[in-house]
Amino acid sequence: MKHTLQEVAAAVSARLVGEPGLEVERVASIASARPGDLVFVEDEKMLAPALASAATAVIAGESAASGESGKPLLIAGHPRLAFARAAALLHPRAGMAAGVHSSAVIASSARIGQPAWIGPHASVAEGVVIGDRVHLGPGTVIGAGVTVGDDCSFAANVTIYAGVRIGHRVVVHAGAVLGSDGFGYVRDPATGRYEKFPQIGGLTIGDDVEIGANATVDRGALDLTSIGRGAKLDNLVHVGHNVRIGEDVVIAAQTGLSGSAVVEEGAVIAGQVGIADHVRIGSGAILGAQCGVPSSKIIRGPGVVFWGTPARPIRQYLKELAALARLARKG
Amino acid sequence: MKHTLQEVAAAVSARLVGEPGLEVERVASIASARPGDLVFVEDEKMLAPALASAATAVIAGESAASGESGKPLLIAGHPRLAFARAAALLHPRAGMAAGVHSSAVIASSARIGQPAWIGPHASVAEGVVIGDRVHLGPGTVIGAGVTVGDDCSFAANVTIYAGVRIGHRVVVHAGAVLGSDGFGYVRDPATGRYEKFPQIGGLTIGDDVEIGANATVDRGALDLTSIGRGAKLDNLVHVGHNVRIGEDVVIAAQTGLSGSAVVEEGAVIAGQVGIADHVRIGSGAILGAQCGVPSSKIIRGPGVVFWGTPARPIRQYLKELAALARLARKG
Amino acid sequence: MKHTLQEVAAAVSARLVGEPGLEVERVASIASARPGDLVFVEDEKMLAPALASAATAVIAGESAASGESGKPLLIAGHPRLAFARAAALLHPRAGMAAGVHSSAVIASSARIGQPAWIGPHASVAEGVVIGDRVHLGPGTVIGAGVTVGDDCSFAANVTIYAGVRIGHRVVVHAGAVLGSDGFGYVRDPATGRYEKFPQIGGLTIGDDVEIGANATVDRGALDLTSIGRGAKLDNLVHVGHNVRIGEDVVIAAQTGLSGSAVVEEGAVIAGQVGIADHVRIGSGAILGAQCGVPSSKIIRGPGVVFWGTPARPIRQYLKELAALARLARKG
Repeated sequence: MKHTLQEVAAAVSARLVGEPGLEVERVASIASARPGDLVFVEDEKMLAPALASAATAVIAGESAASGESGKPLLIAGHPRLAFARAAALLHPRAGMAAGVHSSAVIASSARIGQPAWIGPHASVAEGVVIGDRVHLGPGTVIGAGVTVGDDCSFAANVTIYAGVRIGHRVVVHAGAVLGSDGFGYVRDPATGRYEKFPQIGGLTIGDDVEIGANATVDRGALDLTSIGRGAKLDNLVHVGHNVRIGEDVVIAAQTGLSGSAVVEEGAVIAGQVGIADHVRIGSGAILGAQCGVPSSKIIRGPGVVFWGTPARPIRQYLKELAALARLARKG
Repeated sequence: MKHTLQEVAAAVSARLVGEPGLEVERVASIASARPGDLVFVEDEKMLAPALASAATAVIAGESAASGESGKPLLIAGHPRLAFARAAALLHPRAGMAAGVHSSAVIASSARIGQPAWIGPHASVAEGVVIGDRVHLGPGTVIGAGVTVGDDCSFAANVTIYAGVRIGHRVVVHAGAVLGSDGFGYVRDPATGRYEKFPQIGGLTIGDDVEIGANATVDRGALDLTSIGRGAKLDNLVHVGHNVRIGEDVVIAAQTGLSGSAVVEEGAVIAGQVGIADHVRIGSGAILGAQCGVPSSKIIRGPGVVFWGTPARPIRQYLKELAALARLARKG
Repeated sequence: MKHTLQEVAAAVSARLVGEPGLEVERVASIASARPGDLVFVEDEKMLAPALASAATAVIAGESAASGESGKPLLIAGHPRLAFARAAALLHPRAGMAAGVHSSAVIASSARIGQPAWIGPHASVAEGVVIGDRVHLGPGTVIGAGVTVGDDCSFAANVTIYAGVRIGHRVVVHAGAVLGSDGFGYVRDPATGRYEKFPQIGGLTIGDDVEIGANATVDRGALDLTSIGRGAKLDNLVHVGHNVRIGEDVVIAAQTGLSGSAVVEEGAVIAGQVGIADHVRIGSGAILGAQCGVPSSKIIRGPGVVFWGTPARPIRQYLKELAALARLARKG
């Protein structure tokens, strides 16, 4: 979608150095930029390649403003952030045609805002309440009594179990499952067989959450599982029952959180991390990839980086690795 | 669903101390209990909060019977088990309306028991045989020649490949895939390319198995993959071709079992565990989270706890961790 | 599907010792073989059981040709490879009936080759181009502008996001997601909130790729994610944005590749491996199960085996494990 540099500069709070009426229509990497593209520079070394590229304009930091430039510049305090916002302007979500596809099945008691984009073979069960400007991709299943806020987008083949409550501007990628039963059983000592512990709690998802493809988030056993505003979960992440994830938490792919774990706001969790039951990850803590946090352990934030299994401060872990390597060399 | 305390006590084999005609209609946690709720106490310290809660009645152990109580008590030998059974009574599976949704596609040669709950956009291929009282959620795909026992429930967007055999009372959560091809190839030394080794074996799932959301279970290469009666698999678990899982085995989220692994009855496997090909996990063995069992290794049960990669007895692993920490401190 | 031994021998480039007109119709393991089955022997010790089995014929190496045999033999330089090819001949992909199911939704501008097998509740969006002899299983979703080559097969409930480009003979198992958004955000230092970095790049999948059930492959952020010809990805594998996977790479279940990782041709990656961002795995390198390769690290191939986290040459890792065990024993 074409916008003038003046419009882009206004949208991303940048200062324009150059022709305000020039138009851009896409963002791009420097390596692949073509005319009409907008690129960005974080590292001063990349300024020359950006200026030499075919891009129409460059987002850069204040230091770039002083030099000679053959291209229009958008000077921003945080070039990457300005670029992300420019991309949101230039690349609005490509949609299906607005409307409810004739093959979608919408229960008579469901209420759906306007406009709605509901794809082929989606189904919406009884008692569902969906806000305005929501996309439900093909094959998406919305269980009974679910509530969904405004401006949400569920890609395709997403499953939302009954009763889940979802905020505004939530994005759920294909194949993700929200509100499935938690993993809880009681073993009958007389027979050795497991019987199901009730998994009848709820699941609430805050505003601005994004959930990756084929991720799974279980409902609470008796109480709630909750994911706070702005949290971002990558593909194939698993969230167990009764877990509480705070605001602005980031969790990379294939990480798993066991039952009743708590992750406080702003924590950053890398990929393939394992968090056992009843763990507490403090606000702003950072967990390195593949680390494991044993049951009931408390990790204090902010800014502390943990690694290894059992997870320990990274400085200690690296010292241990070095000591072990020395020991092995000595034979 | 409301039941009198007398009915509940009979269903869970508890001894009722209190008014038999009082009704409860839900189970709950002590913290969230409201009138009409039934709660349980395992730990004696929780008895006072349970009695002080708004719950209508409390399931507790024998020791609670002696004290003064303002509430009806259901005295049980195993309060958690009694509570689980009370939950099954009070919270029967919430259903879609019985019947086959008009958008579901049922092949003419498929036979389906009565009643059936088949949701929107489900499809059932030729030659399928499904028992009585089965739920097939929206978007569920049942491949040709599959057999499904009575009282099974497949949540939504589940895929069952052709020929899989499923027992009674099996629960499969959304997005799970049963009977996909195993991962087997032969490299042609002349070209360096991989060609597919046949993945044409079967998959049998025993009675009372539960399989988590987005879990994947491959069919055998030439023979069978099998999951024994009562086994419970959590979300995102992977089971490779020719794996044999015994009865009452529990496998937590994101664990993976490679081809031809054998897990004997009653083993307990935590989350993110990796089990290589041809491993044998003995009856009743316990594998700690994230541990890794190398190819062809045998882990002997019962009651032995393993941890680490390569998995070793937990006592040894903890000793090694302690020795390493000491070594690193010495510098 | 029945074939004479002469036909099978020709198809797999084997030398037939025995009656050319005899027919076989299935491949099988030695343990389960019945009349009409073809089995194979790699290990000389298995020749006697193979000959004693009920199988009609045996594929074996040159050494078997010299002995006495009651059964027809197909003598091949690489018996396992010959068996795999015989299986492809005897077990062609079982199909749905050719045609487009009446419940499938095909956009008017989509072009689909002939014949096509398109199952119930599949959907194909505007601008899609699909080659000849393609299977789209039930519930499969093909986004706008996707291109798919000839002879591809997508099992069921597969989701392909808009614009993905897929080669010939690509097999995608149930629940897999191709082309989902990568995991990239920019934190606004003023608010602490994450904003989405654009995830608008492409995804190209080469010929002869196979992708496992519930695997996820993200599109590029600004540029491409690519999977080379002949690569094989197992179930629940995660591929992040901008990753480049070379030809004939094999990646076992539950492994994850973070953004911009590069895996060169012929590398072999075991299960549950974690590869951080900007890592480069050299041609022919081998990564052991559960190992972890830290950010930006380069692993050189070919034939080198790495294990542990951080990944190190297996010889070094085993020495370290041995040294640690000795240390712990000393107390």
